[in-house]
Amino acid sequence: MPAPEHTSTITDKQPFDTSDRKTLADRYRSVRRVSEKICKPLQTEDYVVQSMPDASPAKWHIAHVTWFFETFVLSKFRKDYVSAFPQYDYLFNSYYVQAGERFTRAERGLLSRPSVEDVYRYRKAIDEEIESLIEHLDDSRLKEFGRIMEIGFNHEQQHQELLITDLKHMFSINPLHPEYRQKSFPSDRKAPELNYMKFDEGLYEIGHDGQNFCFDNELPRHRTFLESFELATRPVTNKEFMAFMEDGGYENQVLWLSDAWPVVEQHGWNAPMYWLRRDEGWYQKTLYGVAKVHPEDPVTHISYYEADAFARWAGARLPREAEWELACRECRLSGHLGEREIYQPLADDTDQGNGLYQMYGSVWEWTCSPYSPYPGYKPLEGALGEYNGKFMANQFVLRGGSCATSGTHIRPTYRNFFHPHLRWQFTGIRLAR
Amino acid sequence: MPAPEHTSTITDKQPFDTSDRKTLADRYRSVRRVSEKICKPLQTEDYVVQSMPDASPAKWHIAHVTWFFETFVLSKFRKDYVSAFPQYDYLFNSYYVQAGERFTRAERGLLSRPSVEDVYRYRKAIDEEIESLIEHLDDSRLKEFGRIMEIGFNHEQQHQELLITDLKHMFSINPLHPEYRQKSFPSDRKAPELNYMKFDEGLYEIGHDGQNFCFDNELPRHRTFLESFELATRPVTNKEFMAFMEDGGYENQVLWLSDAWPVVEQHGWNAPMYWLRRDEGWYQKTLYGVAKVHPEDPVTHISYYEADAFARWAGARLPREAEWELACRECRLSGHLGEREIYQPLADDTDQGNGLYQMYGSVWEWTCSPYSPYPGYKPLEGALGEYNGKFMANQFVLRGGSCATSGTHIRPTYRNFFHPHLRWQFTGIRLAR
Amino acid sequence: MPAPEHTSTITDKQPFDTSDRKTLADRYRSVRRVSEKICKPLQTEDYVVQSMPDASPAKWHIAHVTWFFETFVLSKFRKDYVSAFPQYDYLFNSYYVQAGERFTRAERGLLSRPSVEDVYRYRKAIDEEIESLIEHLDDSRLKEFGRIMEIGFNHEQQHQELLITDLKHMFSINPLHPEYRQKSFPSDRKAPELNYMKFDEGLYEIGHDGQNFCFDNELPRHRTFLESFELATRPVTNKEFMAFMEDGGYENQVLWLSDAWPVVEQHGWNAPMYWLRRDEGWYQKTLYGVAKVHPEDPVTHISYYEADAFARWAGARLPREAEWELACRECRLSGHLGEREIYQPLADDTDQGNGLYQMYGSVWEWTCSPYSPYPGYKPLEGALGEYNGKFMANQFVLRGGSCATSGTHIRPTYRNFFHPHLRWQFTGIRLAR
Amino acid sequence: MPAPEHTSTITDKQPFDTSDRKTLADRYRSVRRVSEKICKPLQTEDYVVQSMPDASPAKWHIAHVTWFFETFVLSKFRKDYVSAFPQYDYLFNSYYVQAGERFTRAERGLLSRPSVEDVYRYRKAIDEEIESLIEHLDDSRLKEFGRIMEIGFNHEQQHQELLITDLKHMFSINPLHPEYRQKSFPSDRKAPELNYMKFDEGLYEIGHDGQNFCFDNELPRHRTFLESFELATRPVTNKEFMAFMEDGGYENQVLWLSDAWPVVEQHGWNAPMYWLRRDEGWYQKTLYGVAKVHPEDPVTHISYYEADAFARWAGARLPREAEWELACRECRLSGHLGEREIYQPLADDTDQGNGLYQMYGSVWEWTCSPYSPYPGYKPLEGALGEYNGKFMANQFVLRGGSCATSGTHIRPTYRNFFHPHLRWQFTGIRLAR
Repeated sequence: MPAPEHTSTITDKQPFDTSDRKTLADRYRSVRRVSEKICKPLQTEDYVVQSMPDASPAKWHIAHVTWFFETFVLSKFRKDYVSAFPQYDYLFNSYYVQAGERFTRAERGLLSRPSVEDVYRYRKAIDEEIESLIEHLDDSRLKEFGRIMEIGFNHEQQHQELLITDLKHMFSINPLHPEYRQKSFPSDRKAPELNYMKFDEGLYEIGHDGQNFCFDNELPRHRTFLESFELATRPVTNKEFMAFMEDGGYENQVLWLSDAWPVVEQHGWNAPMYWLRRDEGWYQKTLYGVAKVHPEDPVTHISYYEADAFARWAGARLPREAEWELACRECRLSGHLGEREIYQPLADDTDQGNGLYQMYGSVWEWTCSPYSPYPGYKPLEGALGEYNGKFMANQFVLRGGSCATSGTHIRPTYRNFFHPHLRWQFTGIRLAR
Repeated sequence: MPAPEHTSTITDKQPFDTSDRKTLADRYRSVRRVSEKICKPLQTEDYVVQSMPDASPAKWHIAHVTWFFETFVLSKFRKDYVSAFPQYDYLFNSYYVQAGERFTRAERGLLSRPSVEDVYRYRKAIDEEIESLIEHLDDSRLKEFGRIMEIGFNHEQQHQELLITDLKHMFSINPLHPEYRQKSFPSDRKAPELNYMKFDEGLYEIGHDGQNFCFDNELPRHRTFLESFELATRPVTNKEFMAFMEDGGYENQVLWLSDAWPVVEQHGWNAPMYWLRRDEGWYQKTLYGVAKVHPEDPVTHISYYEADAFARWAGARLPREAEWELACRECRLSGHLGEREIYQPLADDTDQGNGLYQMYGSVWEWTCSPYSPYPGYKPLEGALGEYNGKFMANQFVLRGGSCATSGTHIRPTYRNFFHPHLRWQFTGIRLAR
Repeated sequence: MPAPEHTSTITDKQPFDTSDRKTLADRYRSVRRVSEKICKPLQTEDYVVQSMPDASPAKWHIAHVTWFFETFVLSKFRKDYVSAFPQYDYLFNSYYVQAGERFTRAERGLLSRPSVEDVYRYRKAIDEEIESLIEHLDDSRLKEFGRIMEIGFNHEQQHQELLITDLKHMFSINPLHPEYRQKSFPSDRKAPELNYMKFDEGLYEIGHDGQNFCFDNELPRHRTFLESFELATRPVTNKEFMAFMEDGGYENQVLWLSDAWPVVEQHGWNAPMYWLRRDEGWYQKTLYGVAKVHPEDPVTHISYYEADAFARWAGARLPREAEWELACRECRLSGHLGEREIYQPLADDTDQGNGLYQMYGSVWEWTCSPYSPYPGYKPLEGALGEYNGKFMANQFVLRGGSCATSGTHIRPTYRNFFHPHLRWQFTGIRLAR
Repeated sequence: MPAPEHTSTITDKQPFDTSDRKTLADRYRSVRRVSEKICKPLQTEDYVVQSMPDASPAKWHIAHVTWFFETFVLSKFRKDYVSAFPQYDYLFNSYYVQAGERFTRAERGLLSRPSVEDVYRYRKAIDEEIESLIEHLDDSRLKEFGRIMEIGFNHEQQHQELLITDLKHMFSINPLHPEYRQKSFPSDRKAPELNYMKFDEGLYEIGHDGQNFCFDNELPRHRTFLESFELATRPVTNKEFMAFMEDGGYENQVLWLSDAWPVVEQHGWNAPMYWLRRDEGWYQKTLYGVAKVHPEDPVTHISYYEADAFARWAGARLPREAEWELACRECRLSGHLGEREIYQPLADDTDQGNGLYQMYGSVWEWTCSPYSPYPGYKPLEGALGEYNGKFMANQFVLRGGSCATSGTHIRPTYRNFFHPHLRWQFTGIRLAR
């Protein structure tokens, strides 16, 4: 594996001065540019389709992140702001109830208009407004402005990851097997050896410590008692997951949660998402075409239900999120992250400095922790308070980021969350015991 | 109303020599050109969306009618034909079981590829092949060839009508209210007076008489005994339909068929499709924007269930298809047909020569006849036999064509058919008693 | 086969004087007694269950037929009638919109109360009222009274047939395979030879001639032109239907109507309803336990879709209802009808006097005629007008009655109707060509 | 309120010698007798109905608890045990995958057989076998036997509570409003004053301490760090909940979790389950008929979603389960529990000895803790390991028992759990902050 190309970006994790106009302008431009770069290989038609209700059309993502800056920044900081695109408010609000009515989520792919060109025109107009605001905003409001801008950056980065996974899904259901880009990988890659690292029991502080940006759900930092535990030094590989499959894992109801089994049966799950059985063995659909499943790569496109069943079969369990966070604290922020622009997890033996591998990047790791508020949690005021808090039921926490997550977006305390049946993100498994 | 511009095309109804190469080439080009003309106002994005399972993306229509010529003409008449587009066979077969496997109908809008450009490239390639075949086919096969070509012409004309109604549906659900084209109409139009024309009982011959092209479901010509009846001289107008609405027609379950009522309730029907209630009265979405409902225009976008309930309320009934056919026989083929390129029914007082108005064009007229085989009906051999026969259950016959039907495609014996709950075609009502 | 035990009842087909008090009283008592006899083998629990939305609990049938007499007879003919059971009006109205609000049809099995005992108490109370009314009603109203009473008799007879088929369904889904009654049949039974009888073309009078009772949908008698045709002399047997199955009939989509195929696929149909595949061959669930399918018995529990596919496979078609009626006219009213109390079609070689077998009884025969109004059809006035007319869409006509139909209820002009996907009635096939 | 009649049973919470034959026999008989007592007011028909998929017919409960003793006790401890009821294994297994195939849960109400009498015959036969086993089992196995028997007792007690809530649901949907029993309550009851009790932060031991019986999910006892918190001294009353309703709580999407809102909309929730709006105010369906909502009673039939929305509206939150357990430790086991046989929560001012009211009984109290395994959790071996563990996703923990819970079944560490949208249990709200 070549050295990760994103190491330069790690400096972004240095204290970030949100009241510095130049810092803000640079960051705004660089974040915005990434969205456009991700869309570069697309044809106009690729922007329109919504291939399942959980996904959104690329066009919608591009417009929605723009709407976010318009709604939460321009409307608030530009005096007497009147939108030149009032009709987009209804179309491109995702779920912010307090920001007004929204178009039906599952029908985003039924709208041919606004066209892709219109959406980029909207994007450009808002960019100009924002950049002008960065330049001219009154000093007194700069701090508060920077704080919301940072939410906007992080928000757009989340949609960049969704853009990638939603495009992957759209291409995957097309019988013509379109490729996002042409790319090939050396086949001699190897996963590091599997070991378990031991951690002592203790009363630990968990949650963000208040330096730099974090989402409200990472707060407040609080004490949690952990029993001693062991954490696997790397994620589960395809080879290991195939052993589960060959042992009848998908047919053995005893391994599965009660809520999981009807899902397994209804969808006929017998392998991770995107896997195809051919005579010569298992293949998977990737953004770079259909390829043989590589035994050493981390298994991915796994629901919580599958991760949990695999762990039970393996005589282990999934880590608690506090355990994961504790273990991650000493890791170097490196690995297979979005800056590498290889949107497919690959075996990777980059040690993160302390004997743990791939804690960051490659695959999001399911924890066994339901997504709940930390003791003393307070959502932000107003519509931005809907960002995280209202999802605190029926979802599980994932940690560490994936190959599609920016290195400037991830940290030890970052809490991602999805419903336990979902598989279209780059999700994987790290065992604990 | 200006005189219908399509009158010139009526000469196409003259005997059509399907073994004449030039005739075939001219007809091929002119039919194909109409599809492209209908798509001219579209943006790329407009080709991609499938706004409901009953509709198809424009892109799909354009490709499917091409696939039809490739599959039923080229594969059969070009020696050792090998398709340059083998992957399209699966994508663009609609429902011909005997022509192979098909992509799921309801998911046609999930495919961003092939692109619009690819599809037009396909179209062009097949056009060249077909035109070369017209020129070079062995004389001995010309007659059979012409017969299949004519099915292809008529098939494409049917999809031209669907293109228009599917686009109308797609634009209608878009909150931006896009317009297909800009067009406005004089507001002083008037429906002719409503009268009833009387017909005597008798044993009548019904069905196509074997001159020129017809579909297999118009055959064989056979005898039917009809009691004496009266037929309304023009379709029901919006004004008349609004009287039904104001009288509580949509709320009075007694007026509705048993199968109709759950549909009315489920969808909350309280007006024809595309109607909008505003403070100032009823409006309707048209391909030319939202416009006030004109009281004199024929009511349209009416399901069979609504037509039947209206007729019951009016103390009348819908005509039998044999009654309609008998009455139509003496009508001149004129009226508001597709060649006029005004895809919205308008009040029209063109007498069809015998005191009946708008038998052709404007709106398809629901008959009370379930779509059944004529005595002695034989479907065509092979996959083309699936064209009509397999739909002979749970549908009702419509007669006369609409403003989106080509004048070279309609005739007194033509049997259109739809399920009784469907409303997105230009369907309307003519009463009988 | 022993001679049918119901021949004595055929005298009921003699002109029936509905203004004679004794005739009415006898008929009332004999019809009501049959319902009770059918329920005799039931345990209390068997009365409660609704095993599918198309069926109703036995308790509901017993109450509903009573409600019918209360609502359409007592309320109308008893002066100042006040129901002692006002709460039953809501529970036991089936579908008469004009008779008031109704309890949700699909949830009839969720009501443990009124108890079975309550329902029989209701029945007894209404019986006493009706019998008293027969005795004391003013002479001047007797004729009109008799006319409605006759509808009540026929209505209850229809529910007797439904009682039997609904109980069959309920027992069929119980893994304990309860038996309605113990009964066995000689195994050496034989179907008559299959021939086709020829009928000439002509203008025929179709529909009831006005003698005795008929439903409104059998009127008015009217002229229909029929081409010459041939009708099979007996229904299709299990042996013949198994040949269709062995030939891949259920897997060959080409044989099926477009609306039929999704039904076949969704339910995984591969044999008639109630058939079970065991190692030793095909078995079927009957009201008398699970028994080997007898090759000579008429095939039954067949949807219209299956009847239509079978006919297509056999190179024949289903008869039109007018053809069937013409052929039936000369048949003797005899055969395997409900009075025999053997609720399972059996091979039966009783000639009906003219070379046709089993036109009456055994199995209802699907015709290819959609259920439509006869020319000039007028529904009854008021709520009773909902009895037949509002079902005239999406259903097909069946003729001839089954082993569960009373011989006093069936006639050549009788039009039964069901949706084409339904199979739980004793439905079968007679071919035509 | 009269003194709770069940105080005598509290002695059952004394160490219970599961290897003493007389103790086991007494307990077996007393637990079994309660099930029969609950069913005493039922008519045969009431045993058959399953009024929604989450509920089961009374007949099924009665048989299933018997099957539990047969499967987990007789089959294991009776040498060469051969069931006299082999067909019941398939019908009355609930969800124990390792105990074999099961009948579809949602269709339990479609089975009229076995009859109620059959089921009681089964019950009696197993009772005799079990009682004989208690007497004759080899001493060496008595300890293990007692351990499983205790699971059987607790299992049957859980179904006794379900029997009550399932019957309540069944009666509630019947338009005749049947009453389980006639009972009335004094109207001058009063809720105690609302206060908040303060608890200090600390590292606490949580979970069962190993004395007497507990379920596997209460183990192992483990350390948890809690921040200081305050707990309401009594549950939320109807009056308080009505204030939420009057303030538009059910219409204000901002108060609701993201997963909650579609449920609110789909079901049109605007009040707790079983509430009816009448002109004179709010009424509720109870097992004792329809009664005016008493403002002082604890609100009940509340989903987690409603409890969470109410808490947000009230500026408070739901307690964590460890907080609740800590607070409950010093409470006297008293209150409105099942032994009182009043299956309706009532205002109750019994102090539990430490200033907290109604911690036990009245209503199950939703905690904000998702149902997850304690650190080091091990399910039981074999099929009994499915009892609790496999439900550890998408459910929330409830504490304290309700008016339908036996006092011999509840304890401070007891973890009940339900999906967050469910309302048919006696569930309520206690606030924390």
